[in-house]
Amino acid sequence: MSRGRFITFEGGEGTGKSTQVALLVDRLGARGRDVIRTREPGGSPGGEAIRSLVVSGSADRWSARTELLLMFAARSDHLERTIRPALEAGQWVVCDRFADSSRAYQGLAGGAETAFVEALDAHVVGTNQPDLTLIFDLPAEVGLERALARAQGDTRFESKGLAFHQNLRRAFQTIARAHPERCRLIDATGSIDDVQARVWAAVEPVLE
Amino acid sequence: MSRGRFITFEGGEGTGKSTQVALLVDRLGARGRDVIRTREPGGSPGGEAIRSLVVSGSADRWSARTELLLMFAARSDHLERTIRPALEAGQWVVCDRFADSSRAYQGLAGGAETAFVEALDAHVVGTNQPDLTLIFDLPAEVGLERALARAQGDTRFESKGLAFHQNLRRAFQTIARAHPERCRLIDATGSIDDVQARVWAAVEPVLE
Repeated sequence: MSRGRFITFEGGEGTGKSTQVALLVDRLGARGRDVIRTREPGGSPGGEAIRSLVVSGSADRWSARTELLLMFAARSDHLERTIRPALEAGQWVVCDRFADSSRAYQGLAGGAETAFVEALDAHVVGTNQPDLTLIFDLPAEVGLERALARAQGDTRFESKGLAFHQNLRRAFQTIARAHPERCRLIDATGSIDDVQARVWAAVEPVLE
Repeated sequence: MSRGRFITFEGGEGTGKSTQVALLVDRLGARGRDVIRTREPGGSPGGEAIRSLVVSGSADRWSARTELLLMFAARSDHLERTIRPALEAGQWVVCDRFADSSRAYQGLAGGAETAFVEALDAHVVGTNQPDLTLIFDLPAEVGLERALARAQGDTRFESKGLAFHQNLRRAFQTIARAHPERCRLIDATGSIDDVQARVWAAVEPVLE
């Protein structure tokens, strides 16, 4: 049986990732792929337990370094219990956020050392890198307004302020440039259909 | 103001560490030291929240790698919010378990890569190494019997079986040999007073 493909969605708050994850999963299913939808932090019972520690509470509840370790702990469990078994069984995995969120949130925008982030990625993710990463790009003020409008309590990251989210957008753009073989920057402005067309244009080459 | 001293207690389950931590804190206080007692995993609100994830549940709830990341996340918070501020304020810190427990439980006995454990220690603990580490040594079957007799629910580590705890004892002996400048192996057999005398003989040189 051939190994499945691993596609990750990345970007700031309110960029429309989760909507597009759902649409892509449906479309891949319609094309005959056996596909699972998952998310980070979370995606396994252990990962979700760790998620509850990081998405709630005050903005300064955790330092960037501690948060980075919690995110990679959740990622380690998620990889071991959900992602790797699915890929090895031939399933496609579409994941809402993955290691680039740690690079952006805790690393470039949060201040954790880049060398430390990359050491964690090398030990925890290793050869399980995504086949394709779609990075959703939108002005920070637009995304933050959308995210706050739908927020229901777990708003620790949303509460970090506009300057943090502007740094975050630049961080994701930097990551896209640094990993051109894997990452595609997706213009997240316009209608859901507009964005879906851009997502599909990026995914179709991976179908071959 | 001069920096305080940092003393850690290490060893397997049921070796009597916590009793001796309390006795040492009292004795240091009687000698005029301003001293705090703390523990790992835990020792800060964030550290204690992470502790609750690791000490309960089934033995295989977390892999050694995920557990290692959770332990260093808890340690990062504990260092930032409790240990470093206390040492910088001139307080002595006596801690029940620290990084050598990660080396032993998740590393040597658990199977997480030594290089990964040391990379985490270098980034998270860095220059905040203990001034003195007392490693309590006791046959694993004696310690485990004591630990299970007093257990009250949070027995995830105790449930890992005798072979694991025998490996753990050897792991702590290996760590003591590898760090002779910092570690003292304490014979944990005999009465509380016997062990206290051995602890004090190891600590007294640090008082100067």
